[in-house]
Amino acid sequence: MKKTLLLLALLPVFSYAQDLLTDSLFIKNLSDNVLTNRAAYNNLYYLTKKIGGRLAGSPQMVKAEQWGAEALKAAGADKVTLQECMVPHWVRGGKDKASVSYTENGKQQTMQLNVLALGNSVGSGVRGVKAPLIRITSFDDLEAKKDQLKGKIVFYSVPFDEEFIHTFEAYGKNVIYRAIGASRAAQYGAVAVLVRSMSHSMDNNPHTGALHYLDSIPKIPAAAVGLRDMEKLDTLFTKSKSITAQLFTYGKMLPDTIGHNVIGEITGSEYPDQYITVGGHLDSWDVNEGATDDGAGIVQTIEILRAFKATGFRPKHTIRFVLFANEENGTRGGEKYAAVAKINKEKHVFALESDAGGFTPRGFSLELPASAWSKVNSWKPFFAPYGVTDFEDGGGGEDIRSLGEQLKTPVGELRPDSQRYFDLHHSAGDVLEAVNIRELKLGAINMAALLYLVDKYGL
Amino acid sequence: MKKTLLLLALLPVFSYAQDLLTDSLFIKNLSDNVLTNRAAYNNLYYLTKKIGGRLAGSPQMVKAEQWGAEALKAAGADKVTLQECMVPHWVRGGKDKASVSYTENGKQQTMQLNVLALGNSVGSGVRGVKAPLIRITSFDDLEAKKDQLKGKIVFYSVPFDEEFIHTFEAYGKNVIYRAIGASRAAQYGAVAVLVRSMSHSMDNNPHTGALHYLDSIPKIPAAAVGLRDMEKLDTLFTKSKSITAQLFTYGKMLPDTIGHNVIGEITGSEYPDQYITVGGHLDSWDVNEGATDDGAGIVQTIEILRAFKATGFRPKHTIRFVLFANEENGTRGGEKYAAVAKINKEKHVFALESDAGGFTPRGFSLELPASAWSKVNSWKPFFAPYGVTDFEDGGGGEDIRSLGEQLKTPVGELRPDSQRYFDLHHSAGDVLEAVNIRELKLGAINMAALLYLVDKYGL
Repeated sequence: MKKTLLLLALLPVFSYAQDLLTDSLFIKNLSDNVLTNRAAYNNLYYLTKKIGGRLAGSPQMVKAEQWGAEALKAAGADKVTLQECMVPHWVRGGKDKASVSYTENGKQQTMQLNVLALGNSVGSGVRGVKAPLIRITSFDDLEAKKDQLKGKIVFYSVPFDEEFIHTFEAYGKNVIYRAIGASRAAQYGAVAVLVRSMSHSMDNNPHTGALHYLDSIPKIPAAAVGLRDMEKLDTLFTKSKSITAQLFTYGKMLPDTIGHNVIGEITGSEYPDQYITVGGHLDSWDVNEGATDDGAGIVQTIEILRAFKATGFRPKHTIRFVLFANEENGTRGGEKYAAVAKINKEKHVFALESDAGGFTPRGFSLELPASAWSKVNSWKPFFAPYGVTDFEDGGGGEDIRSLGEQLKTPVGELRPDSQRYFDLHHSAGDVLEAVNIRELKLGAINMAALLYLVDKYGL
Repeated sequence: MKKTLLLLALLPVFSYAQDLLTDSLFIKNLSDNVLTNRAAYNNLYYLTKKIGGRLAGSPQMVKAEQWGAEALKAAGADKVTLQECMVPHWVRGGKDKASVSYTENGKQQTMQLNVLALGNSVGSGVRGVKAPLIRITSFDDLEAKKDQLKGKIVFYSVPFDEEFIHTFEAYGKNVIYRAIGASRAAQYGAVAVLVRSMSHSMDNNPHTGALHYLDSIPKIPAAAVGLRDMEKLDTLFTKSKSITAQLFTYGKMLPDTIGHNVIGEITGSEYPDQYITVGGHLDSWDVNEGATDDGAGIVQTIEILRAFKATGFRPKHTIRFVLFANEENGTRGGEKYAAVAKINKEKHVFALESDAGGFTPRGFSLELPASAWSKVNSWKPFFAPYGVTDFEDGGGGEDIRSLGEQLKTPVGELRPDSQRYFDLHHSAGDVLEAVNIRELKLGAINMAALLYLVDKYGL
């Protein structure tokens, strides 16, 4: 009798221990499957080398959608659909070019600059824009010099803050100059802007990225400059008072066009009409292969689906594997996805994104109801063997932001190591060779583990 | 009175809190200094691009010693000395080459293989070695087929175990085939060996590394094969029964020659004759720039010295910054350092190495007296902001192994993320561009923090 009582008393503990064992064995089995499988590499190879850069509205993006749908099917999706959405259609239109002229030792000198027009920017056209160059070190500096800006090209020389350990903090601090620096300068009559590339890199690749013109301010050309040229330019300003810049860009915003969120599903066994979403964005900039941004997130999304099917996992909720249509120069993919979910009154349990590169995983950024944190923190031991130790209170990615805002869905994003990301981000350097496929796979393994635990235990 | 008593009672707590603050501010200040300084990059640039591959005994290694002494002086060493030691002098002697011939559809076919002779191996000479190729999948397999090996070239096809999260475990499991595979095969009459490169890489670069001939067994040529060629060869064995291989290598072991450990010091303020050692190895393989192995460790060592001096840190113990003479094809640098320390009856408090690449730091492997662990574990919060969370019970690096063994010195090694290391290790891919300088600097910051804490609080 006593023994029976003891056993009964131990039953919850035993069952809890059993669950821990089941869960950790599930994750180990999935990890082994992912680490020994070639599909992720083959997918990334195809997306980067056979399709390449794929800005929304481009022919490459159409190919990427078709490829994505096939890849989700090949990975074993129960269902694949294309969700139509209108996307911006910006084209670079030509080879961006810039130079500065100055006088040194009584002689006229010219220095070429390595530049890339910012996304969404207007072009200078074939005649270019040529004007005196003025160096600006902050928006405060801009305001102080507002009377000197008319007819000038503004050169925003605002270095990345290297003291941050997490490089996204340096980016977050400076990206405002890329985003609205053109309008802020145009407001005072500037005719174009050159912006320091948003990067820590040691090379001279310029880094493009989205610009947003502010309403009712004239749109002026804008380009990012490679960091080595930027330093030369800074040095030049210590020596020469009179520097003229010339910029040629050909950007053009065409009418919105049709794009698609590509959605694969594993149907839930218990709650087929409750959704867990995982995804990345399929579009990329046009000047590279979009390997880390966000080929990595796309391939991880497909890999998680493949590994779930390959290991026989049947989720209770329906899991949607979403390749979002447009994030780089708009966030139309995520907005559409949330809008449709809202119209259809879908119940979304959780959404997870990978859009911070395919680097070695270190943690998750999560936006959860306060009540969920103790549960999620109790899961930490499942992740530590696979390199993830940081669970931080923060947002999800751009593509699931609308879902979080509109439906109050808990969201999260994989946090890979951030040191390499801005060396490549939006530059020609973002190619397959910069990705270590095991790092990418470890990200997928940790994401899959989180999806598995949320599906099983809820939030 | 009561108040005074309370204050007195609080004093240790207050002083402890003050210390925590002092220590974390010291580390933050040092981190800022390192992350915003260019010296580490400039040093790595010079070592990789101006000097390059530097095998012990090579002219490049002589240049590297001279450069290292100057770099330590420039970083602010109180004293720089060269410690002479005899080092092995192996030369590659020519361009390694291999091919296989087989019959397909009745036609004779030849496939070139991407190979590198293993370090310390004897050459085939200009006439090469040509023999039937036999595929061996383990030493057990070798034993089972020992009667078939006479006059053959053995092809060790033992894949890396991809399921390990820490790649050094896969390496540790397989490196025995590179180390003694030649002797094991020669014992049964084999005339040469081809070994799968010790790597996870997706490219076809062969990876060299040290081989050790076992006494009284004939020395036979040995080379590593690139992984893509390796897979082709594996496939070939499923189709063709009769494959002949031809190998040309030119390796030669010359008489030992003179090398030097390059040693910089900051003299201790309280215990000048008690030593803390930090270092990496200056030598590298000849086929690359030795950027991660171990340019990273060298540059980190010099950077810690520079940053200590730049931030005005005066250690209590003498800190020695050691660029070890020879690790790759011998461990003569570390052996000499320990031997001299023993002869001189030096007291060594701690020794730390960086020889696992300049990748983003994740932890330390430490071999400490049991009594030291609780203290070291209490330091963890100092490291977490800089990315280091794992303190594992393990060994130090190869260069300080002798010190640990001979003098019972506590030793440790930086544990960077391991995913990328074996993609590059001992192959042509180990070049400056594979290093992210911020990752390397974060390693140096965490190492400096550990040295600072050990110096201040002991072990």
